[in-house]
Amino acid sequence: MKRFLDLAELARAEVLALLELAGRLERQPEPRALEGKILGLLFMNPSLRTLASMQAGMARLGGSSFVITPGQGTWQLETRLGAVMSGAAAEHVREGIPVLASYCDALGIRAFADGRDLAADLAETNFNAMAALTSKPLINLESAVNHPCQALADWKTLDDLGVARHGRFVLSWVYHPRPLPLAVPAAALHMAALRGMEVVVLRPAGFALPQAIMDKARRAASMSGGSIRESDVRREALAGAAVIYAKEWGATECYGDTAADARLRAAHADWCVRGDWFEHAAPECRLMHCLPVRRNVAVADEVLDGPRSAVLREAYNRLTAQMAVLYRLLKGL
Amino acid sequence: MKRFLDLAELARAEVLALLELAGRLERQPEPRALEGKILGLLFMNPSLRTLASMQAGMARLGGSSFVITPGQGTWQLETRLGAVMSGAAAEHVREGIPVLASYCDALGIRAFADGRDLAADLAETNFNAMAALTSKPLINLESAVNHPCQALADWKTLDDLGVARHGRFVLSWVYHPRPLPLAVPAAALHMAALRGMEVVVLRPAGFALPQAIMDKARRAASMSGGSIRESDVRREALAGAAVIYAKEWGATECYGDTAADARLRAAHADWCVRGDWFEHAAPECRLMHCLPVRRNVAVADEVLDGPRSAVLREAYNRLTAQMAVLYRLLKGL
Amino acid sequence: MKRFLDLAELARAEVLALLELAGRLERQPEPRALEGKILGLLFMNPSLRTLASMQAGMARLGGSSFVITPGQGTWQLETRLGAVMSGAAAEHVREGIPVLASYCDALGIRAFADGRDLAADLAETNFNAMAALTSKPLINLESAVNHPCQALADWKTLDDLGVARHGRFVLSWVYHPRPLPLAVPAAALHMAALRGMEVVVLRPAGFALPQAIMDKARRAASMSGGSIRESDVRREALAGAAVIYAKEWGATECYGDTAADARLRAAHADWCVRGDWFEHAAPECRLMHCLPVRRNVAVADEVLDGPRSAVLREAYNRLTAQMAVLYRLLKGL
Repeated sequence: MKRFLDLAELARAEVLALLELAGRLERQPEPRALEGKILGLLFMNPSLRTLASMQAGMARLGGSSFVITPGQGTWQLETRLGAVMSGAAAEHVREGIPVLASYCDALGIRAFADGRDLAADLAETNFNAMAALTSKPLINLESAVNHPCQALADWKTLDDLGVARHGRFVLSWVYHPRPLPLAVPAAALHMAALRGMEVVVLRPAGFALPQAIMDKARRAASMSGGSIRESDVRREALAGAAVIYAKEWGATECYGDTAADARLRAAHADWCVRGDWFEHAAPECRLMHCLPVRRNVAVADEVLDGPRSAVLREAYNRLTAQMAVLYRLLKGL
Repeated sequence: MKRFLDLAELARAEVLALLELAGRLERQPEPRALEGKILGLLFMNPSLRTLASMQAGMARLGGSSFVITPGQGTWQLETRLGAVMSGAAAEHVREGIPVLASYCDALGIRAFADGRDLAADLAETNFNAMAALTSKPLINLESAVNHPCQALADWKTLDDLGVARHGRFVLSWVYHPRPLPLAVPAAALHMAALRGMEVVVLRPAGFALPQAIMDKARRAASMSGGSIRESDVRREALAGAAVIYAKEWGATECYGDTAADARLRAAHADWCVRGDWFEHAAPECRLMHCLPVRRNVAVADEVLDGPRSAVLREAYNRLTAQMAVLYRLLKGL
Repeated sequence: MKRFLDLAELARAEVLALLELAGRLERQPEPRALEGKILGLLFMNPSLRTLASMQAGMARLGGSSFVITPGQGTWQLETRLGAVMSGAAAEHVREGIPVLASYCDALGIRAFADGRDLAADLAETNFNAMAALTSKPLINLESAVNHPCQALADWKTLDDLGVARHGRFVLSWVYHPRPLPLAVPAAALHMAALRGMEVVVLRPAGFALPQAIMDKARRAASMSGGSIRESDVRREALAGAAVIYAKEWGATECYGDTAADARLRAAHADWCVRGDWFEHAAPECRLMHCLPVRRNVAVADEVLDGPRSAVLREAYNRLTAQMAVLYRLLKGL
């Protein structure tokens, strides 16, 4: 494995092997496996889990890391090709990325969606342009419409919790004051499909996921015996759910138009996961969310603080899943 | 030792053992003692000494650390229970703390006083709520009314300088443009009392420390043969002092009322430690201050740059004292 | 070697030995050479290469580092002697520097020019005052008029590229919206002179480098068989160049007067290195720049993305050169 940019670039068997490696490193630590190896971390956007777990993961394997946060102790970075750089950005990623890559053995990059041009974001224009600037092992720490580290951690969480391979996985839109990116819903949808689950995408009218994201997940489902359907009826969709995977995202049909999006979402402030969402779910149904989560806006205290919540396990599995990725990228075995 | 949250949770003998360990690690480095161990550091407030010495301490013992600073590369964290999170904070400490704790072997948290509600700050409401969220080894890096790392470093400094156990320790209020928290004066007062010193709290009218802080220190004094009294007469209090421990803090009687505090403190801008403060002190009397210190506002250049100043030794002992704490928490011996 | 503050403090033979060590560590890594050693990094100004390469360099040699960035998670630092600190800065470098130094085995400091008083900047008043506060091994990570790490990396790059010792090195002023510091042009000029090159300083009228900087470089040239001359005629200066070293800087004659500088530089926005700058240069002529570089303002895409560009090699050599410096400072061999 040379790069970890998209779970869809791996065969199902490769994902399973990564998960097995994650479990093995959890049971049998290898504190010197990556001795002398260095991970560079470039954060164009804020982070808590990724920032902490990537550094912790390298350290647990005996390696080290450095963090670069443009605009905070480091110059702002320009990403547009051909830009006449007379503005705030002092450095272009065409220098920044290869320079940072030359200092380390693997590079992680986080760069959220621009959130203006849906086609450009779906094509990962920005991230792909950066990824093309280095041939070093590269990790996607969240791009416009992908978050493979989260997806791998979520898959491991489903396994850890004993959720059946074909169980019902309800990816449910939940309320947030602003239109958040599509990265996690897209990655979670694809992951559940590739795992072989019966996936329902539950969202209010206007919040259907883009066609390209649905199509990609459907291809994964067809390969692994899973299925995907959409619904905007909460009661129906949640019935029998083994997992409610809550996530906030912006309206596809007015992508980039914050005012129109705000009008649309204002009607759905009641899409906050509460205890009663589980009334007709499977008895063991769990709540998943990638975090950070706005309490009592997206998910209620009663759910997050109750026994159904798996959010801390998911976050912990960022560490275990990424250790497997780092090990594979830097040790090759 | 499972946690290091308050020096008062340790018996006097345990403190002495920690200080002995600190001295031993200083003389006989153990550069692999904490190999493979990871310290998470969560800074809700700025820091220089704590930030640098905690990372350096872990590294000197062979471990590693990561730093999380909400609002700077990381989401702002909500601390209020039951909050409807529709504001600036994207994540709640109820997720943030256990998640970070799950990535490391010990967690350090710095969270200053809110400075609005004295009773809540005295009860460490905020810090205790966070501490309750993890069962991992935990270190208080300064809370509303405590700073045990500073207290332990100060005790070691007193020992290093050969200050007599029963010497006179004058904790003196000094001027600062704003009402600073009570954490260091409270911790230093308790530490000197527990060490068995003759403590005088010197402060202008209106700046008496809260009763709860005085009572706690008096209990420590009574256990160790020390004493505590208060004074607002500089000349009298400083006579015979072995140590002047200068510190800025806010007025208890108008806690949280910045305007009233400002009126009160305006009259005391002359409370800046100058050479003449030592005129009637013991010949070897030393100046202590936890830093950062505003030169020529709280303490004059002539004192900080003179032979009486022990401030650099105190700061250095943050490293030695904390290494003992880390060693004890993570190695147990 | 106790300190690495200015390449001019080293004899030519010492520089050559450092470069040889850099090459040796590149070919034969020593991943445990600095085990247990700690580098403190104090950044008063933004950084990308220095920040990342210093941490990576320590890690590659088995050591570790911590980063302090005043104003970002750490108090702002006062540098003025005798200041009455009633403003924004909470801590003075007179405490900050020795405290940080006491936590580490070597300290690196970055502190750009004040850009107001040319004489003070040329005398390195600010940096020298800080350097005097510690006797620990110290590294200049860029000061008012020096950048020895960049100079050493550039020298190694010239060697790596096989640029002849006596080749023509054209240090050319290029446009930038603001008057940047003199640190890199001064350091590059001195380096090329000490290497023995035929140096031409090419700059528009009004942008001659200060006399003190020219004189220092001339002394280096006279020791090593190099030469230095100045020109404001691009065509003439670039003819036969083996290297065009592009750099932005402020006008000496109106140093500190931003408005006057802006009027002066406005006429020279065409000083952007384009392909035609190489028309009469040597066939193998290379473009050097310390980065960050504003694309299509200081240097055009066509040059940066073409085969003449050596900027990534220079940036990479920050790592190799600094590893030699760290090794020498901390291991002594």
